[in-house]
Amino acid sequence: MRVFQNVEDLGDLKAALREAFEVKKNRFQYQELGRSKTALLIFFNNSLRTRLSTQKAAMNLGMNVIVLDVNQGAWKLETERGVIMDGDKSEHLLEAIPVMGCYCDLIGVRSFATFESRKDDYEEKILNQFIRYSGKPVFFMESATVHPLQSFADLITIEEYKRTARPKVVLSWAPHPKALPQAVPNSFAQWMNAADVDFVVTHPEGYELDPRFVGDARVEYDQLKAFEGADFIYAKNWSCPGVTRPADYGKVLNKDMSWTVDAAHMAVTNNAFFMHCLPVRRNMIVTDDVIESPQSLVIPEAANREISATVVLKRMLEAL
Amino acid sequence: MRVFQNVEDLGDLKAALREAFEVKKNRFQYQELGRSKTALLIFFNNSLRTRLSTQKAAMNLGMNVIVLDVNQGAWKLETERGVIMDGDKSEHLLEAIPVMGCYCDLIGVRSFATFESRKDDYEEKILNQFIRYSGKPVFFMESATVHPLQSFADLITIEEYKRTARPKVVLSWAPHPKALPQAVPNSFAQWMNAADVDFVVTHPEGYELDPRFVGDARVEYDQLKAFEGADFIYAKNWSCPGVTRPADYGKVLNKDMSWTVDAAHMAVTNNAFFMHCLPVRRNMIVTDDVIESPQSLVIPEAANREISATVVLKRMLEAL
Amino acid sequence: MRVFQNVEDLGDLKAALREAFEVKKNRFQYQELGRSKTALLIFFNNSLRTRLSTQKAAMNLGMNVIVLDVNQGAWKLETERGVIMDGDKSEHLLEAIPVMGCYCDLIGVRSFATFESRKDDYEEKILNQFIRYSGKPVFFMESATVHPLQSFADLITIEEYKRTARPKVVLSWAPHPKALPQAVPNSFAQWMNAADVDFVVTHPEGYELDPRFVGDARVEYDQLKAFEGADFIYAKNWSCPGVTRPADYGKVLNKDMSWTVDAAHMAVTNNAFFMHCLPVRRNMIVTDDVIESPQSLVIPEAANREISATVVLKRMLEAL
Repeated sequence: MRVFQNVEDLGDLKAALREAFEVKKNRFQYQELGRSKTALLIFFNNSLRTRLSTQKAAMNLGMNVIVLDVNQGAWKLETERGVIMDGDKSEHLLEAIPVMGCYCDLIGVRSFATFESRKDDYEEKILNQFIRYSGKPVFFMESATVHPLQSFADLITIEEYKRTARPKVVLSWAPHPKALPQAVPNSFAQWMNAADVDFVVTHPEGYELDPRFVGDARVEYDQLKAFEGADFIYAKNWSCPGVTRPADYGKVLNKDMSWTVDAAHMAVTNNAFFMHCLPVRRNMIVTDDVIESPQSLVIPEAANREISATVVLKRMLEAL
Repeated sequence: MRVFQNVEDLGDLKAALREAFEVKKNRFQYQELGRSKTALLIFFNNSLRTRLSTQKAAMNLGMNVIVLDVNQGAWKLETERGVIMDGDKSEHLLEAIPVMGCYCDLIGVRSFATFESRKDDYEEKILNQFIRYSGKPVFFMESATVHPLQSFADLITIEEYKRTARPKVVLSWAPHPKALPQAVPNSFAQWMNAADVDFVVTHPEGYELDPRFVGDARVEYDQLKAFEGADFIYAKNWSCPGVTRPADYGKVLNKDMSWTVDAAHMAVTNNAFFMHCLPVRRNMIVTDDVIESPQSLVIPEAANREISATVVLKRMLEAL
Repeated sequence: MRVFQNVEDLGDLKAALREAFEVKKNRFQYQELGRSKTALLIFFNNSLRTRLSTQKAAMNLGMNVIVLDVNQGAWKLETERGVIMDGDKSEHLLEAIPVMGCYCDLIGVRSFATFESRKDDYEEKILNQFIRYSGKPVFFMESATVHPLQSFADLITIEEYKRTARPKVVLSWAPHPKALPQAVPNSFAQWMNAADVDFVVTHPEGYELDPRFVGDARVEYDQLKAFEGADFIYAKNWSCPGVTRPADYGKVLNKDMSWTVDAAHMAVTNNAFFMHCLPVRRNMIVTDDVIESPQSLVIPEAANREISATVVLKRMLEAL
């Protein structure tokens, strides 16, 4: 595996899940694989879970880890070619990327959508430069459009907790004070479409996800109707994806607090588990009582980030 | 040991000191103990000695180390339950703490007093959440009220340099431009009360330390009288502890430069050693000539931070 | 080797180059040398290549690495003696440096010229305090006046790519929007004077480098004339070194864009290789087409930073 971006990069999903559970039983069994190998984790944006779980995963595999916070301890990078660089950016990505590639064996990159240009965001301008110029395998630690380490952990969690062969999984939009990227819902939709689940998406009008991720998944604009009989509720806010309303890309269209997942919402489900990728705004996305209920999987789901990352890095090491 | 907060957590102090000197002779002898174990060091506040010495200690024991600077590279955390999180805080400690606990075996936390509420500070609101929700052993890397890794290092240093079986040790307040927490003097008083020393505290009126730490230690308001015949002078500034003057908690009551430890002060001692936990404001707390004198132990004392941390982490690993 | 600052610290340059190429063949062959040894990397200024390549080098040698960003996660340090420290600086270098030395075996320091005082900068006030007070071997990761890890990497690169026994190497000033230190050109001149090359320096009037570094190297004020027949063009901006114009130390005297290295400049060379230490301002220092040409060595040169650092740390470990 030279790139970890989409669900297809993992090949047979059932095999990947088996591997995840095997790793979870003994996460240190592949320590020789990473000896004298270095993972470089590059953060253009803040991170808690991804930062910790990916470091832990790399160390599980015996790797050395270097963490680089761009814009903290390094400097701003120019991304456009042809610019006379007389401003505040000291270096061009076209130099910085191959240089970073020199000092490591695997590169993880976090770089969020900027909402300045839907085209740039959805073309994965930054990450594609890393793929093209770093000379090393690249895994996405949340990019402008996807967050596959999260979705793989989500899938592992659903597989662990499901009570039926083909559970009903609902991805539900919920309100948030700020404009958030679509990376998590995009990836979650992509992974659920590839998994053996009954997948439904619910959100207000205008929040339609990009077809390349959501595919022909069922969309239900009535949130409570979507929740009926659900086995898993996956809540998440996202800003306008600019599909049905291109001019509103990246904007907050709606703060309707009736979409907050509360006990009344959960009451219509099949005693569903509650999931969220975290960080979560309590009493915006979900009420205190739902997130603290026995049905809440937010912590086991986060714990599985270490497992998904270990599997991904293991496969990348094996392919070196 | 599941929590390292107070002197009692270490059990028999003489045994702990013996262990410290044994570790100091060969600090790498327990490298197998930490294999495939991860220490997570969480800093809500800045750090130099604690950051370096605790990383070093964990590596002495063969551990992996992850350092997390909250508010730098991560984000602000909500600490109150029931809040509608529509402000600048992206995540709740109730999620963040168990998540952090997922990716490590031991957790160290630095979180200073905020002086917003004496009750919150003295109830150790933040650290107690880590103890309660992280699922992992927690060691204090300076909390709102204590700094036990420092006090243990101080005790080791006194044991190394003492010239009599029961030396006279004086904790002396000294002036400082800013309001500092009471963590260091609280812990130092607690540890000296538990050690075999003649302990005296001296400070201006209003700076009385909390009885749960200072106990029935002798307090002498005349600094020079306190210094008479002392074997060790331990200087430190602290702000008003709010014991005798509750309304002034966390305030600077006094900047009397006659309390600065200078040669005239040291002249009345029994050729005392000078100690300070560092960082120290020169010519506020202590004059250049005293801190640079052969009697100054500030550097060996700092070096013993590695030893105290190694012993504490070793014991926590043994108890896993 | 107790200090790595100048080319002389490396002894016989040919032997050092042989060692570099041997290390490059197998950079992990000395992993036992660094076992249980800790490198502390202290950054007073930002860093990308030095940060990554030096971490990688230390890990190549089996060392533990601690990275400390002063002013981020630590605090401001006082450097003057005798000051009443009642301002924003919490600690004095005279305490901080020996303390840092306690927790490691080797210390690397980055501390740029401040341009506040030519005397302080050129006396290496900060680095010399580390050499004097840390108690540990110190290597320069770019100081006020030198950047020897860069120059050693440059020399390795020239040795790898040279097509004649004694190539012509031209150090050329080029325009830049901000005032940059002279560390890179100083060191490059020092190392080229010590190497077996035909060395020429070219820059506008007023940019004369300090004689202690540039020695009696040939200076040619006509850039194109300097470039004639060159085998290597080493471009770099620097601010006024204050040699011929003492009052202008650290100032930008010139932004003449005719000095930008473009295809017309390269056309008069002997099909020269293009070198730059990076980060580089494109279309200020060098045009897009020159830096992207097959003759551009900026990436292999950066990759050799890992090699130069590995050799330097290896020698320091051997001398412990």
